[in-house]
Amino acid sequence: MSQRLKKMRSVLAKQGLDALLVRTFEGDSNNVYYLSGFSGSAAVLVITKKKAFIVTDGRYYMRAQKEAPEFKLVKVKRGSRLTEHINEALTMAGLGKTSKVGFESDHLSVHFAKTWCKEIKAKLVPTVHLVERFRQCKDSCEIELLTLACKVTSRVFREVAPLIKAGMTEAEVAFAIDMRLRKHGASGNSFSTIVASGPNSAMPHYATGQRKLKAGEPVILDFGGVFPGGYCSDLTRTIFVPGKKPQAELVKIYKIVLSANKAARKALKPGITWKQYDKVARDYIEQHGYAKQFTHGLGHSLGLAAHDPYDYEHDPFQEGAVVTDEPGIYCEGLGGVRIEDDLVVTADGAERLTSAPYLRV
Amino acid sequence: MSQRLKKMRSVLAKQGLDALLVRTFEGDSNNVYYLSGFSGSAAVLVITKKKAFIVTDGRYYMRAQKEAPEFKLVKVKRGSRLTEHINEALTMAGLGKTSKVGFESDHLSVHFAKTWCKEIKAKLVPTVHLVERFRQCKDSCEIELLTLACKVTSRVFREVAPLIKAGMTEAEVAFAIDMRLRKHGASGNSFSTIVASGPNSAMPHYATGQRKLKAGEPVILDFGGVFPGGYCSDLTRTIFVPGKKPQAELVKIYKIVLSANKAARKALKPGITWKQYDKVARDYIEQHGYAKQFTHGLGHSLGLAAHDPYDYEHDPFQEGAVVTDEPGIYCEGLGGVRIEDDLVVTADGAERLTSAPYLRV
Repeated sequence: MSQRLKKMRSVLAKQGLDALLVRTFEGDSNNVYYLSGFSGSAAVLVITKKKAFIVTDGRYYMRAQKEAPEFKLVKVKRGSRLTEHINEALTMAGLGKTSKVGFESDHLSVHFAKTWCKEIKAKLVPTVHLVERFRQCKDSCEIELLTLACKVTSRVFREVAPLIKAGMTEAEVAFAIDMRLRKHGASGNSFSTIVASGPNSAMPHYATGQRKLKAGEPVILDFGGVFPGGYCSDLTRTIFVPGKKPQAELVKIYKIVLSANKAARKALKPGITWKQYDKVARDYIEQHGYAKQFTHGLGHSLGLAAHDPYDYEHDPFQEGAVVTDEPGIYCEGLGGVRIEDDLVVTADGAERLTSAPYLRV
Repeated sequence: MSQRLKKMRSVLAKQGLDALLVRTFEGDSNNVYYLSGFSGSAAVLVITKKKAFIVTDGRYYMRAQKEAPEFKLVKVKRGSRLTEHINEALTMAGLGKTSKVGFESDHLSVHFAKTWCKEIKAKLVPTVHLVERFRQCKDSCEIELLTLACKVTSRVFREVAPLIKAGMTEAEVAFAIDMRLRKHGASGNSFSTIVASGPNSAMPHYATGQRKLKAGEPVILDFGGVFPGGYCSDLTRTIFVPGKKPQAELVKIYKIVLSANKAARKALKPGITWKQYDKVARDYIEQHGYAKQFTHGLGHSLGLAAHDPYDYEHDPFQEGAVVTDEPGIYCEGLGGVRIEDDLVVTADGAERLTSAPYLRV
């Protein structure tokens, strides 16, 4: 955490800011956690050139002291306003009306911003993605945790795949997956497990339901856990329900998607852009006649969130980026195939963190 | 949904708006779901006096058509901007530059608002809690779903409580709870299950860990599921690990907390304010000498979110409000007790939806 605070302060200096306010936001506490170690759901960090405060309420006093020892605890009292206590921290750091205090403009709603601008005694300056940009590249400790997360998730697939049979419901398959994620160390799901069978597999983000699996059908399994340290995995495999030969076109699609997945992995390296990365898989799928059926992006950044922040438009890949590689083809009526791996960008290429097997088709 | 759309339109008229934009926001899609039935994670509703559109991307085309049949689907194409498609919907409704279009100011970040104001071809007007205010009072169908959610959650407590023994870890107890929630119909947890044992029970929002339970200690179990229709439950019980008599002070605290819980329930009825409701429990706890150890609010609204929106400061209770009743006393070093029920406000009082037993102390 010291390293991260130090980095953050160098950014403050560059931006000409006297302080930065970092807050938990609608259940997203990842920036706060990343900088401080505090894992609760409600706090504001006040980071100045020399000091660091964590402002939180009675539910979290003890946890903040325990998890964020580098931050001085400022207690929000019942009935008082959060902004009073932010001001208290700013005052303790010797800051006042003329100080430039950054706030995360995409972590503060228009509604809330009105209150902050009125009540916080400083010059508030909107900032964008200052913490998120650090989070784009994972350090060795983070990569270790993500490697573990992906390893366990792959194991869950290997355990569950042989259990899948015609007659089971999608929800039963999801239950089997989720139980094993927890059993093997996840504290929860990194998103709601998707089990999309038969015609439902043509919906990329289908909500798992009570439909019964039929022999020969494709089933998309897309799931991940939140593992120690708060790091997320995200794995997709498509299988065919045993008992009947799958339709030839679905097998053909499977091969195309798998090749697109592998082509993208081989192309991934520092310096290329997300657009270039996406294009590798998209071109391959287009050449094989399914351009219109690949209806989503190739992947996203992965870390403390299943969809970790990344400036996809502007920032090319750097060593330490961890991303998904998940091409898919979805044909209404027929069904769909998606195959997703998690990759880490290395000095000269990319390595696969997920090791769940593909089908031999 | 028709009823809800109708209500929404009457609000538009009152506010002098030609349209309202309702969007999913950082994983919170409850307003969109409430009005349209669409349960995906990314969409913008464009509701005008006569028309209703759902703007979403390729992952969700089919789901939007299926779940939100009253809304005309506007497809966000890959590579195009969301705002283009919002403009497309506004144009189809005959709206343009001079039309007044409301947006939810607490569901749009300062950062995003800049883009919307620049790109959306209408006069954008910030609104606050227009949809949330409808969500405060549950209709009979919602109350039925919440009743079911609370019933199942209480059953899970009754099943798990007898299994709890010295030597188990907190995480094992949480696993036993979470498995049963899923088994009995929850699609997931409504928040991370809290199992706080011994000294950890003094932290109101403790993060379940690997600590082993010891005989005689208090253990706070705070959990809930997301049940059919998306409705959440939220239940807390405190038990003492069998095998040793609990400390006298903890038993005393248990009695105080339980009496405070019951007193609050008896006081709850339409017309009283949240402050008055809170005060009933707080006064009782204060009279018994633990005012400073009750460090959080008495409760919150419950519905599609575990912490459902409610204008706590301004809106007194109305029939159909569903709320938690969760006083607690937390003594650093000694431990804590919290007892939480979910209540529905009736015509002349309140009824308990949770039926998990209390301890006989």
